[in-house]
Amino acid sequence: MTLDAATLDARDPLAGHRDRFVGAESELVYLDGNSLGRPLRATAERIGAFVAEEWGGRLIRGWDEGWFDLPLTLGDRIGEVVLGAAPGQAAVGDSTTVLLYKLVRAAVAAQPGRDEIVVDRDNFPTDRYVVEGVAAECGLTVRWIETDPEGGVGADDLAAVLGPRTALVVLSHVAYRSGWLADVAELTRLAHDAGAWILLDLCHSAGVVPLELDSWGVDLAVGCSYKYLNGGPGAPAFGYVAARHLESGAFVQPIQGWMGAAEPFTMGPEYAPATGIRRLLSGTPPIVGMLGLADMVELIAEVGVPAVREKSVALTELAVALAERELPEVRIASPRDPDRRGGHVTLAHPRMRAVTAALWQRDVLPDFRQPDGLRIGLSPLSTSFTEVERGIAAIRAAL
Amino acid sequence: MTLDAATLDARDPLAGHRDRFVGAESELVYLDGNSLGRPLRATAERIGAFVAEEWGGRLIRGWDEGWFDLPLTLGDRIGEVVLGAAPGQAAVGDSTTVLLYKLVRAAVAAQPGRDEIVVDRDNFPTDRYVVEGVAAECGLTVRWIETDPEGGVGADDLAAVLGPRTALVVLSHVAYRSGWLADVAELTRLAHDAGAWILLDLCHSAGVVPLELDSWGVDLAVGCSYKYLNGGPGAPAFGYVAARHLESGAFVQPIQGWMGAAEPFTMGPEYAPATGIRRLLSGTPPIVGMLGLADMVELIAEVGVPAVREKSVALTELAVALAERELPEVRIASPRDPDRRGGHVTLAHPRMRAVTAALWQRDVLPDFRQPDGLRIGLSPLSTSFTEVERGIAAIRAAL
Repeated sequence: MTLDAATLDARDPLAGHRDRFVGAESELVYLDGNSLGRPLRATAERIGAFVAEEWGGRLIRGWDEGWFDLPLTLGDRIGEVVLGAAPGQAAVGDSTTVLLYKLVRAAVAAQPGRDEIVVDRDNFPTDRYVVEGVAAECGLTVRWIETDPEGGVGADDLAAVLGPRTALVVLSHVAYRSGWLADVAELTRLAHDAGAWILLDLCHSAGVVPLELDSWGVDLAVGCSYKYLNGGPGAPAFGYVAARHLESGAFVQPIQGWMGAAEPFTMGPEYAPATGIRRLLSGTPPIVGMLGLADMVELIAEVGVPAVREKSVALTELAVALAERELPEVRIASPRDPDRRGGHVTLAHPRMRAVTAALWQRDVLPDFRQPDGLRIGLSPLSTSFTEVERGIAAIRAAL
Repeated sequence: MTLDAATLDARDPLAGHRDRFVGAESELVYLDGNSLGRPLRATAERIGAFVAEEWGGRLIRGWDEGWFDLPLTLGDRIGEVVLGAAPGQAAVGDSTTVLLYKLVRAAVAAQPGRDEIVVDRDNFPTDRYVVEGVAAECGLTVRWIETDPEGGVGADDLAAVLGPRTALVVLSHVAYRSGWLADVAELTRLAHDAGAWILLDLCHSAGVVPLELDSWGVDLAVGCSYKYLNGGPGAPAFGYVAARHLESGAFVQPIQGWMGAAEPFTMGPEYAPATGIRRLLSGTPPIVGMLGLADMVELIAEVGVPAVREKSVALTELAVALAERELPEVRIASPRDPDRRGGHVTLAHPRMRAVTAALWQRDVLPDFRQPDGLRIGLSPLSTSFTEVERGIAAIRAAL
């Protein structure tokens, strides 16, 4: 493959979509779309119109006219376009952390004879903190997988800690530092062979890596919407619960609120959870926060996740190849095999904290991750190959 | 007082603010501002600009430039303008239900020798559902206050169920159906005399009724921002924790996430809660959802809560007086004493469900509350006396 970014951009079938994002015309090199995706121009226009016309014009009637069901209708659409999930299994609402808490609590409650939760030492802090918190409050033990921080959880790693006491395995699909892309089908098979459930954190994979939650047999999943789904800062998360756990009634989450009740407007004396995925909800759903997410899901539907993934691989391949050529003193702290790599690449060097700060001064925005990683996040629909090239050149200059 | 709405509008010192809300010029009679407040025109303009310029222009840098602290800085501002709370005790985030869950769990965990939670039978469903859920999971007993559904919780009602086993009292400041305005100072004194904490739900009072959380000595509070604080459908809630429970370390909530950790970006191995009110947070804060709320808090600051309350009382007095004169077959299911009444009035009649539906067809929008209540919510800064008059006339016609 050529390493000439201009040629790659000229050949890129998705290049035309880049102009649909705010700021695409600027000189800024944005290498952090996996922390906060750029807004679509359509979102910038629509959100003001929503306030003036829908919120301001329909007022309370909006709840009957679509808002009440939006967490589920948008959940279904995310399921179809992004998750590989049949309808009725995904819902939007809360933060990733709150949904993780609900899902972990529900999973351990569903398996009262099992008292261990498996999680990896290098998982994202919120995942670890939630698991530790739930374990402490429910009297469970955390079984840690000690991972290579520049790789991720493989089958052998997981097999070594699974057993008849395992209630739940909590893993990230794409590791937030290394970019390691887990083999979910295999890990799920292992968890199920041990009689455990698996909960997948999709924060760094939803919208950039193909997902087949239903066919993989994943039990539970959660993901955020402000990275590759461009929902905006702090936009609500989504949760997935496999239909079998909803139909059996096994899935019951602990935060009992009116929006998850069987009959929200009866306002009856006792809480009875709704049937289906509505029981994942608790409070009033954040409607304005879902608008950007909804816009991006439709763009992904138009393009298709396979095409997004193809450009994602090409972008990370270019980043790795240019780093190898231009930055010999830097360690590539991400998998070399694109089949084991998500949408970002981390470059390690003792001076990367200072390098990141220097780059920000020059309008080149990667992220820094402890202890020595400069993370290049490449959001395929809004990032050009030229941005990758300029980013690597800026690192070269800063080092 | 005159019952002539045009005269009252002409004399209203706050009338000029009404044009600052979207739709004020329309023929619609909006009597549900206590379910979903109208947007400010400023919000409709600013939110699109926020997406294009701040989210789209500052991108990930926005977190360093104010978003990270926004739950606390906006919490402080709400504390100052609305809650009667010194800085460092309020934070914005999550839904009311999720915050209730965190606060109730924290309160019972802080008092391990006490095993009862007091709540009233007529409290809002989410409050009751959360209390019942926490009681079940923590092995506590719910002590119910049996209230008159057209009144609310008085001192005698509370005194009858308090005792040495009471850990927490959960009450609404303004009852969602009757509009009963609780005497918080007295109820708090009673709870504290019994050694219990009190958690106040401010959903129907924040922004319309003067609050003095600090001087009343309230322990915990929660409120939503989409009613009299005009934050938009599903906008995030706010929580209040008295400084003494933060300083002592007694307040620890169960949903451990990275945004509530002492050092969020160290991403360290174990969760240590932040000092101060930040420990109430869990996941990434919903920035876009806070914009409308922030705009409305500034308008309230400009006007002052006492002036808002003065108009609120005048609006509900007019509603009661007109209902008495025009609707003799209707029961006024709200307190007659304005000192015991919040910002809404409920009118009861066996046909009110059908009446509400008929009114909606004519662009007169009250709310219906089981079993027979037509609820007139009067948001002082966006509601005119003429709307009240037209609303009562429409009920007259529909009956």
